[in-house]
Amino acid sequence: MSIRFDYNGATTQAVGRSHGVTVKELEGLRKRAKGIHEDLMRRRRKKELGFYDLPFDDVLVRAIQEYARGLRWAENFVVLGIGGSALGPICLHTALAHNYHNLLPAAKRRGRPRLFVLDNSDPEIVTRLLDAVDLKKTVFNVVTKSGATPETMSQLVVAVELIRRKIGPKALKKHIVATTDVSKGLLRPFCDAHELASFVVPDNVGGRFSVFTAVGLLPAAVEGIAIHRLLAGARDMAKRCTRSDLMRNPAYLNAAIHYLLDTRRGKTMSVMMPYSNALRDVADWYRQLWAESLGKAHDVHGRKAYVGQTPIKALGATDQHSQVQLYVEGPNNKVFNLVQTERFRARCPIPKSFRDIPELAYLQGHDMGALINAELDATEFALAKAKRPTVRFVLDSITPENVGGLLYLLEVQTAFAGGLYEIDAFDQPGVEEGKKATAALMGRSKAADLAKAAEIASVWRKKKSLRSL
Amino acid sequence: MSIRFDYNGATTQAVGRSHGVTVKELEGLRKRAKGIHEDLMRRRRKKELGFYDLPFDDVLVRAIQEYARGLRWAENFVVLGIGGSALGPICLHTALAHNYHNLLPAAKRRGRPRLFVLDNSDPEIVTRLLDAVDLKKTVFNVVTKSGATPETMSQLVVAVELIRRKIGPKALKKHIVATTDVSKGLLRPFCDAHELASFVVPDNVGGRFSVFTAVGLLPAAVEGIAIHRLLAGARDMAKRCTRSDLMRNPAYLNAAIHYLLDTRRGKTMSVMMPYSNALRDVADWYRQLWAESLGKAHDVHGRKAYVGQTPIKALGATDQHSQVQLYVEGPNNKVFNLVQTERFRARCPIPKSFRDIPELAYLQGHDMGALINAELDATEFALAKAKRPTVRFVLDSITPENVGGLLYLLEVQTAFAGGLYEIDAFDQPGVEEGKKATAALMGRSKAADLAKAAEIASVWRKKKSLRSL
Repeated sequence: MSIRFDYNGATTQAVGRSHGVTVKELEGLRKRAKGIHEDLMRRRRKKELGFYDLPFDDVLVRAIQEYARGLRWAENFVVLGIGGSALGPICLHTALAHNYHNLLPAAKRRGRPRLFVLDNSDPEIVTRLLDAVDLKKTVFNVVTKSGATPETMSQLVVAVELIRRKIGPKALKKHIVATTDVSKGLLRPFCDAHELASFVVPDNVGGRFSVFTAVGLLPAAVEGIAIHRLLAGARDMAKRCTRSDLMRNPAYLNAAIHYLLDTRRGKTMSVMMPYSNALRDVADWYRQLWAESLGKAHDVHGRKAYVGQTPIKALGATDQHSQVQLYVEGPNNKVFNLVQTERFRARCPIPKSFRDIPELAYLQGHDMGALINAELDATEFALAKAKRPTVRFVLDSITPENVGGLLYLLEVQTAFAGGLYEIDAFDQPGVEEGKKATAALMGRSKAADLAKAAEIASVWRKKKSLRSL
Repeated sequence: MSIRFDYNGATTQAVGRSHGVTVKELEGLRKRAKGIHEDLMRRRRKKELGFYDLPFDDVLVRAIQEYARGLRWAENFVVLGIGGSALGPICLHTALAHNYHNLLPAAKRRGRPRLFVLDNSDPEIVTRLLDAVDLKKTVFNVVTKSGATPETMSQLVVAVELIRRKIGPKALKKHIVATTDVSKGLLRPFCDAHELASFVVPDNVGGRFSVFTAVGLLPAAVEGIAIHRLLAGARDMAKRCTRSDLMRNPAYLNAAIHYLLDTRRGKTMSVMMPYSNALRDVADWYRQLWAESLGKAHDVHGRKAYVGQTPIKALGATDQHSQVQLYVEGPNNKVFNLVQTERFRARCPIPKSFRDIPELAYLQGHDMGALINAELDATEFALAKAKRPTVRFVLDSITPENVGGLLYLLEVQTAFAGGLYEIDAFDQPGVEEGKKATAALMGRSKAADLAKAAEIASVWRKKKSLRSL
């Protein structure tokens, strides 16, 4: 693993006093940092924060690899999952499978299945996928810890019905594998009744911290991604990210930079902008991690807080032609995480043969990888010139080790940031209201639902004359 | 076309005085709105704002359809374009082609080519795609108005070299079609020299307003999308969006709501959240339109402004499991555009056969489309309860007419918002710095580049001892 974290661009030297942090400010957080560190380590030892230790579970890796080897007959592996159950698998797929994995013929995929993730209750994506694939060569991986996720469970019901009807009632065992709670939850009895293969989401790991459980590892292994190397990178990073000294721990340092820039410099948004298509869904995964962990109405003391930076996924160089105008000239309210890849997995030399357009001769002879990295340097320069703070992660290449390391770093960064904001980074109370309202609107008939339905019916939408055109 | 714009959720009745707008405030903008309207119409008549009239060009539609009919031999249509040259085609593809278009066998695609858009200078996506497709059955559509876009032109050079070498020097004509300026620019002489088929990006249409030119229409027609219906919807919407009265024009009204919420209620972000996978890239297209048009350092009077809401793309119901925790409990600094689809193009009934889990019985018998729409209602309710303003677009279904209408509305909304913010919505001066820096770093050797390279070398990154770990 080789990941360097460079925070020069976030300092006052780079972007001035109004928009950068000083080393003194960072060092001023050292004492608080030590307290937060000790609290995290205490909770880790008490097995409350399971995510810390996931990369050390070799037994799980072997079990998953064995299961994956048995799936060479399958052409399609369809994850039924949403939120943390989808973003981990998608992130690993985009980063570490071939860029066009699903389009390659089976031989070029070395017999590995294609991967699909049905992460929405959109009827089109479900029905049309089931229409497009050969059911007999398809395995469904239903992923839900509680078994109560309506989007995922609806899809499971549809898949079960289809398998029973088209292949036979005994075929469920072959075509469904579950990833769910070890004993609790609504899905476990179903697994037992049908003797389904299943993997566990540990009790002490929340959805957004689950990429190194079977949630992320199983689909990755099925595609042929070297999950043992992914975890090796995470373990390496674990050493750097459990240093108690803020100034020597890249996860703590980036959390502190973000916290200071948000609370003292008005940087209310955190842009994650890898310069690599393969890493684009690392940004999408980070977007859930940062938003759901830190966006909280109350702090740990029960006081109103309404905190949380808004994470934004971007893609370099693509978004230079979409967002950078705003980033450079709009309100100075963002901190940027640039992610550089020093060596890409494919070369693309720009040939010298094209002499028809002399104005573009300067591009010839370079590799396209040099162009995208020059664009990263240029954008960092333009942002600094406009006094917009940046940090930069430098990966020597896109390997399982580096991706594992980067994700682990961002998880620790998020947990530590929870300490700085003094909020609970591991709950999500704000989504309950919508869940209850959905159940009420769908006609679940508990007493609480009836009350909720009445409440929905009484609000502004029903009372006022509708304003629309 | 049937699109309804509902703004109840953005009013003070829904979310209170601190976070909503009043009808009185909106009406207070009527006079300014009239002035902005007259200015826009004057510039439209003077042919400065070409985007207004694009949907009325039947001749172009016929020319494109004829070209597309001649492409049935092709298996792959590869757009080489970035920014506005990519986001329009991608948006139409995601919205109106089959959800799994590229994965379908040719017969199910009715012989239409697969569509790829290479919108980055990432060497992996270029080399690996060229590796994965049959070059003899591939057509490249190079899209750049100026012909000076380094990402796109590098890709063109690579494709040209490959075609010359693998198929033959005379094959360029068959395998490349250009979309570029009618006479100016670096690409036009190349088209002439090789007698390439080509289409025009009109002089008075900027990249982000180009979806109804050949930039968007050609790839769409090649895939089999009914582009005449797309334009019919845009024409219909043009009637509603050129009403001079703010209160009767949905584009003006949504611009005014966003402007008031940004400048008077601190809603610095505009979330575009369709509840449909097909419409997810409408949000990505909007993201460029809103950011690049409104993110400006100076107003039209030359005064410092630093304005521009940050647009955010989201996807319902998926992001309820990722972003809604922050949206409901975090800082109240966003306005939400929810997009509803009343009828989906595929049904997905949730069967009644699955009795093993009684807790989920309430889902059975519904269509999945009812679930996703209940989730939209529930989220709107939860946002309103937390005093977060929303507007809602309601499409009766996902048709070319409705997509055309929605995009046209958002274009007019953006142009009008430029008037409210008193900035030039049609330029992008902020990206020049990065472009010059890239050219300098890539070794272009104009005098200005040498100066720029010296400037880059002199900044913080080189002067200071590097802070990284």
